[in-house]
Amino acid sequence: MYEGIVQDLIDELGRLPGIGPKSAQRIAFHILQTESFDTTRLARILTEVREKVRFCRICGNVSEEETCAICRDPRRDTSLICIVEEAKDVVAIERTREFRGVYHVLGGAISPIDGIGPDQLRIAQLLQRLADGSVTEVIIATDPNLEGEATATYLSRLLQQPGLRVTRLASGLPVGGDLEYADEVTLGRAFEGRRLVD
Amino acid sequence: MYEGIVQDLIDELGRLPGIGPKSAQRIAFHILQTESFDTTRLARILTEVREKVRFCRICGNVSEEETCAICRDPRRDTSLICIVEEAKDVVAIERTREFRGVYHVLGGAISPIDGIGPDQLRIAQLLQRLADGSVTEVIIATDPNLEGEATATYLSRLLQQPGLRVTRLASGLPVGGDLEYADEVTLGRAFEGRRLVD
Repeated sequence: MYEGIVQDLIDELGRLPGIGPKSAQRIAFHILQTESFDTTRLARILTEVREKVRFCRICGNVSEEETCAICRDPRRDTSLICIVEEAKDVVAIERTREFRGVYHVLGGAISPIDGIGPDQLRIAQLLQRLADGSVTEVIIATDPNLEGEATATYLSRLLQQPGLRVTRLASGLPVGGDLEYADEVTLGRAFEGRRLVD
Repeated sequence: MYEGIVQDLIDELGRLPGIGPKSAQRIAFHILQTESFDTTRLARILTEVREKVRFCRICGNVSEEETCAICRDPRRDTSLICIVEEAKDVVAIERTREFRGVYHVLGGAISPIDGIGPDQLRIAQLLQRLADGSVTEVIIATDPNLEGEATATYLSRLLQQPGLRVTRLASGLPVGGDLEYADEVTLGRAFEGRRLVD
């Protein structure tokens, strides 16, 4: 509908996830009309990002160096590994400030419908990390959905070995939520996982 | 939360309208992980877009040339001008294929709260276009909200001159909508603007 480069910009923005044609148009006009928006800066970052970013050799987290900041941090407890699907999950968990161990990023979850089996995930690298017996607990923190649960089940069987605790994040009612709006599965899990009040 | 350039990318994306921190993160990881997404192309377009795009000397629409495709088209009826707020509105109206006249893009609407008065809009240019008397009708197609209505009222008074019809787009029930969900103002307008059935 637009001429030349304006349409090109709308088309390219529309390829980004979660941005439909209307949002793409709105963003394109914002970029065009807002003097203070630094198009050169965004262009430079886009050009550099693929070259600069690599994945941590140990855990698979995003990093600009060979190992990520968490794996490099000597204060982290390397006997405790939290297994997550994506690098985004690392950030979500870091935000809680509850976890002082290290991570292992699988790079996804088992999903036969998308053609993702255990071989497409960083599971061999995980087994390698566990080989020397220095890890005492792995916490499986895959998403609480179909694919995440399947991956958790697969891993929990695979990782059974003497001296290694395999745990899974608790499922239950979200804090701040309303019991009446919880779905049956979540509410069922909350009952199953009920705890003694001190 | 992320290291270096990944955080830079998330920050820059988060400056775009309608993109919050979560979406920015999702888009950044999509860009990082999707090999087929052409970062170089988006970077190039971003670099070029500001240089290449100008605004049509006649109507204010976006264009890569001195005048836009609509003003250049000899088949358009230049005696009929449709006044809109933004270039996006031109595209929305073009999509209806109902209008064969030309446009005038104001570049916004009167909004005292944002410090936008008539002088910040392309109203002087509009008066210039009307000066030679060749235009027979102006259709005011500003948004049906507070600012758009104020602008329409202002313009309808300003443009009163012999031989010029000043019209405003009809307000009423949206087609495909449900009467019971219409707000009172819209429903009131629909009554006010009711038409004889042929």
